[in-house]
Amino acid sequence: MNLVLLEPAEVARSGEAALGGARAGHLIEVLGVAPGHTIRIGLIDGPMGTGTVVAAGGGTVRLQCAFDSHLPEVPRVDLLIAVPRPKVMRRLWAQLAAIGVGRIILTNAERVERHYFDTHILTEPSYRPLLVEGLQQARDTRLPRVSIHRRFRVVVEDELNALVPDSLRVVAHPGEPLRLLDAIDREGPRRVLVAIGPEGGWNAFELEMLQSHGFLRIGLGPRALRTDTACIALLSLVHEAIRR
Amino acid sequence: MNLVLLEPAEVARSGEAALGGARAGHLIEVLGVAPGHTIRIGLIDGPMGTGTVVAAGGGTVRLQCAFDSHLPEVPRVDLLIAVPRPKVMRRLWAQLAAIGVGRIILTNAERVERHYFDTHILTEPSYRPLLVEGLQQARDTRLPRVSIHRRFRVVVEDELNALVPDSLRVVAHPGEPLRLLDAIDREGPRRVLVAIGPEGGWNAFELEMLQSHGFLRIGLGPRALRTDTACIALLSLVHEAIRR
Repeated sequence: MNLVLLEPAEVARSGEAALGGARAGHLIEVLGVAPGHTIRIGLIDGPMGTGTVVAAGGGTVRLQCAFDSHLPEVPRVDLLIAVPRPKVMRRLWAQLAAIGVGRIILTNAERVERHYFDTHILTEPSYRPLLVEGLQQARDTRLPRVSIHRRFRVVVEDELNALVPDSLRVVAHPGEPLRLLDAIDREGPRRVLVAIGPEGGWNAFELEMLQSHGFLRIGLGPRALRTDTACIALLSLVHEAIRR
Repeated sequence: MNLVLLEPAEVARSGEAALGGARAGHLIEVLGVAPGHTIRIGLIDGPMGTGTVVAAGGGTVRLQCAFDSHLPEVPRVDLLIAVPRPKVMRRLWAQLAAIGVGRIILTNAERVERHYFDTHILTEPSYRPLLVEGLQQARDTRLPRVSIHRRFRVVVEDELNALVPDSLRVVAHPGEPLRLLDAIDREGPRRVLVAIGPEGGWNAFELEMLQSHGFLRIGLGPRALRTDTACIALLSLVHEAIRR
């Protein structure tokens, strides 16, 4: 934990916050905080800042918070992803938040099994703490926006333009010769929307629909990667390519 | 499993191989193979090829193997990594093999806890099947070479030149402005050796020693990544940057 994230409701007008539970346990037992110590804090979807420990003990840490005047930038990459197996999805949440993504748009595809949609790992009470964990690792406050769309065609045809306007759109497809780096170089750095298919890939209809809605086909080379590995690879490529 | 990897000893002079255990179970139950079917196969550290199913049943699959005449190239990136926590290391093996790495050089650092070295996950019987799993995912046959070096100073000063001659050397360090992409562009594409520190980073002595042995300091931007996420990010960046 490189940053302690607070919910806006946890911080009183006076700037005081009282933490309990796992965060207080971590601060007291792992970091050994005591009155007068300062720690890096952040407000979820708000600024970062400094918390001065006022009291620590009995399972509670009381902080006096001072926040920066500016907000961290929202990551300039978004993800359209066919819902992966629950086990993979569970692993992905924190990693996606850590590496940095603005929106996570989950959708269907022919090769997505139906029961993948019914798992609790797609419910906000399950994934939100995992996203927060990733942000605390990466030192960011901007919670990725998550939306789930059971109908692939509807999200691509009707909803994507509103969700992610004016991005460079790319879809990863095995064997495509175009590198993501060259696609970004060609278009200049701006926001990027990356589409990642299910294990086994998008089918021909899905690929065509993505292409006809502006997605450039790019490839990651000859190796076949697991969905979670491909996500991290592609998102980190975008971050590096648009960072100047 | 996108490729079935065979040990050289499993293939008879006649080209026949008899598979049992989990591989046979996967072929029979998941892929439903029957006599006459062909599957993609590979010889560990040897060529890829095609296996024609001669018989399938009773927990055994017999294949007639035909191998290509050329070997897959060894990935042009190597890794020098401070031993991470056993839980992280366990997750990493298959992902490293999948994304592609020539050598995995594990070493010590001030912020590596001693007991990390004593875990079974650093023993070949534990990690080899995980590396093979990653290769089968990625469709590669080249098993990463693994070596473990308890003394950081010795590996950097005395052993690295022999283990990894003539590579571009980079060390990832938080906050460094130089991008890996620009370091590679500047030097031209060749082999790259990436050094990744422990949680909390290399200490000043370690960083200096790496720099005085030719490692360029590069950064991945402002976000602090977990070791496994950073490994995947850096290795995929190298692969993309040297792929032309």
